[in-house]
Amino acid sequence: MTDYRLLRVALLGAGAVGSQVAALLLKHADELADRAGARLQLAGIAVRSLDAPRDTELPRELFTTDAASLIASSDIVIELIGGIEPAREHILSAIGSGADVVTANKALLATHGPEIFEAADRVGASVYYEAAAAGAIPIIRPLRDSLAGDRVRRIMGIVNGTTNYILDRMDTEGAEFSDVLADAQRLGYAEADPTADVEGYDAAQKAAILASLAFHTAVPLEAVHREGITAIDKSIMDAARHAGYVVKLLAVCERLDGQDDSPTGEAISVRVYPALVPRSHPLASVHGANNAVFVEAEAAGPLMFYGAGAGGVQTASAVLGDVVSAARRHIAGGVGVGESTRANLPVVEVGRVVTRYQITLEVVDQPGVLSTVAGLLSDGHVSIATVEQTTTIGESDAAATARLVIGTHKAKEQDLSATVERLAASEVVARVVSVLRVEGN
Amino acid sequence: MTDYRLLRVALLGAGAVGSQVAALLLKHADELADRAGARLQLAGIAVRSLDAPRDTELPRELFTTDAASLIASSDIVIELIGGIEPAREHILSAIGSGADVVTANKALLATHGPEIFEAADRVGASVYYEAAAAGAIPIIRPLRDSLAGDRVRRIMGIVNGTTNYILDRMDTEGAEFSDVLADAQRLGYAEADPTADVEGYDAAQKAAILASLAFHTAVPLEAVHREGITAIDKSIMDAARHAGYVVKLLAVCERLDGQDDSPTGEAISVRVYPALVPRSHPLASVHGANNAVFVEAEAAGPLMFYGAGAGGVQTASAVLGDVVSAARRHIAGGVGVGESTRANLPVVEVGRVVTRYQITLEVVDQPGVLSTVAGLLSDGHVSIATVEQTTTIGESDAAATARLVIGTHKAKEQDLSATVERLAASEVVARVVSVLRVEGN
Repeated sequence: MTDYRLLRVALLGAGAVGSQVAALLLKHADELADRAGARLQLAGIAVRSLDAPRDTELPRELFTTDAASLIASSDIVIELIGGIEPAREHILSAIGSGADVVTANKALLATHGPEIFEAADRVGASVYYEAAAAGAIPIIRPLRDSLAGDRVRRIMGIVNGTTNYILDRMDTEGAEFSDVLADAQRLGYAEADPTADVEGYDAAQKAAILASLAFHTAVPLEAVHREGITAIDKSIMDAARHAGYVVKLLAVCERLDGQDDSPTGEAISVRVYPALVPRSHPLASVHGANNAVFVEAEAAGPLMFYGAGAGGVQTASAVLGDVVSAARRHIAGGVGVGESTRANLPVVEVGRVVTRYQITLEVVDQPGVLSTVAGLLSDGHVSIATVEQTTTIGESDAAATARLVIGTHKAKEQDLSATVERLAASEVVARVVSVLRVEGN
Repeated sequence: MTDYRLLRVALLGAGAVGSQVAALLLKHADELADRAGARLQLAGIAVRSLDAPRDTELPRELFTTDAASLIASSDIVIELIGGIEPAREHILSAIGSGADVVTANKALLATHGPEIFEAADRVGASVYYEAAAAGAIPIIRPLRDSLAGDRVRRIMGIVNGTTNYILDRMDTEGAEFSDVLADAQRLGYAEADPTADVEGYDAAQKAAILASLAFHTAVPLEAVHREGITAIDKSIMDAARHAGYVVKLLAVCERLDGQDDSPTGEAISVRVYPALVPRSHPLASVHGANNAVFVEAEAAGPLMFYGAGAGGVQTASAVLGDVVSAARRHIAGGVGVGESTRANLPVVEVGRVVTRYQITLEVVDQPGVLSTVAGLLSDGHVSIATVEQTTTIGESDAAATARLVIGTHKAKEQDLSATVERLAASEVVARVVSVLRVEGN
């Protein structure tokens, strides 16, 4: 056995990921030492209460409620508490005491990333966060290092397993949102309060992290446009399938050219919404709770990274990879996985985005309706690519209505929304059923 | 403009990749400086002859035939000559003079990797080679860093674009090998001498590199079992499709347990051969000249990395990512992308491998044949999962024959080959049409 230097590792949090990290640190201690060039001693596990029931075989003497002392005496601090406080405070004091930090905390990085990275920069510490963006999928190092000589044009990510699980089952089984959500909650794929997932908050945090890295720009969470999937119902799924699409909740990070108010003409857009993806696109075949990040770079062309986006042991893999990197750096010095925000591109509102749309309208079933609708679209600078009249619904207490599904050419989001408002106000339109963006073609 | 330190970058070779690397270094100089924290000055491009015709707009004064002087005065040396010599000599002298090295040279790394990495270790230099394993696809950093806290069980890679292009067209068009190869040569997807690709030599070099990294073991090229795709014909393709498979040339790197002659019971197998992949497997939908690397790790579970495996500008993306990493390291110090061979697992012969097989036999069409064949398989410890008699061929000058397609349960390769030899010698077997491994289920 090589006589390695000892590094003290503090673990904050003993939940699904934390308990796996602790177990693997103990189980694979020798292998990890060989790879890191240092023996990684699990110095302690900070938890809120020692009495909380734990389904774990970890040595009880490792647990402590004194996070501050544990942090102060450690070389590497793994933060797996989640949320803003006390995670933020613990990370800042770890940095202050000269430790390197590993975290999977997307909420914290998306809101306080710059504060944390600046604190680390000041003292030459490093903050690693491979597990914060797409669980077990290696995406941070590829974006920061492998693509550092390239220019990312666009990222389209399925970065939330819960919503992909729900949309995938709605698609393959023809089920309704509420039924699948209830089932997902029963099976543990969704939380009792599913808001963070189904409203896109979790995906928006990850989008902010990915966009910051890819575009070398600090992207604040507030700049991420966010829509959830609660409005997606069976009829939207059916219509998408009929048109050759599947509905996916996408995190889209895009470089935009020709922006007058940017010094270089370049800006970025970061947005999370349910979008129609062509069935032939690689992202369309990402099933269940899996994640995938599709990256288009100027030189490399299209790349895709696929794997488990969540799960205790899967996420622990990404955390431990970071711990080994932190240990190597702690010994050899040099650069960690910091942030470069040199480009500092403006983040523009979703109104500037140019994409294709599918608009579904319920219209009164009478001559001249299509001409009126087409006129409103044309006036609004939205060009029609396809129109299909799908069903005619006769209702006893109302005029007969028909359903129009309109596929547009590329249009600017602000033109599109203004046009949709005018459509909604039109006498021939009974109801705007849905407006969905089409991404990935 | 920030006042960055200057790093001199030498480029060796101005082929398809080299000329793109040079062009991008010049075009994106400011952005690269921001990301690297150093200005990357292209100091020169070493070529064999200044008079060779070049389809490039690169400044002529950058070209030189004096590689030695260029190397001696540079901080980072990019080797894109390929082959063993003079690439090896140039890389060793670059390391000797204190430069960091970036190379895409799979042939050199697969044969002289340990020599090069040891030379670099001795002086604290780094050798980066993201482009050597799967072109533009980031796979080196994920294996070395992101998965450093995990244990890779198995890699299945489509790492040769030419053969994937050929097999994909044979599959989708029902075309013959020779016709598609000729077309691929005409379109520039295959070399005039296609041996390196179609016989699996290129894939074997990449397999050695991937296995070395994934298993922390120096895997010599000679230890890689290698078979090409020249025996794959339309009838094999048709039978594969009929059985729900597609034929892919796979580089398989696998951790084996229960090996008596290994101290830990663990060993590895590294092999390249055409294999049957279930249509539902993610690798089955890798089309055209694309590459993909499917990784199964103990904690992370299945991961897939997908993208362009070749092409000048695509490969240049990976090379430039390495140049930025080398520059950061050159300034900040610390660890590069070296090799860990601490595990040093034995690499076993293909005979030890356990997998499923599909055996296709032409047998005489008479009663009792299936019983004889089944008896031979059973005697050889090969258990039958499925049997299908596909066609009966009546020939005027011979006995009528039938075709048997046998799917086996998992069997050891050495048992299987011995059994196939006995089948071939049997009176009831007219011909062993094909024996293919089934991977990925």
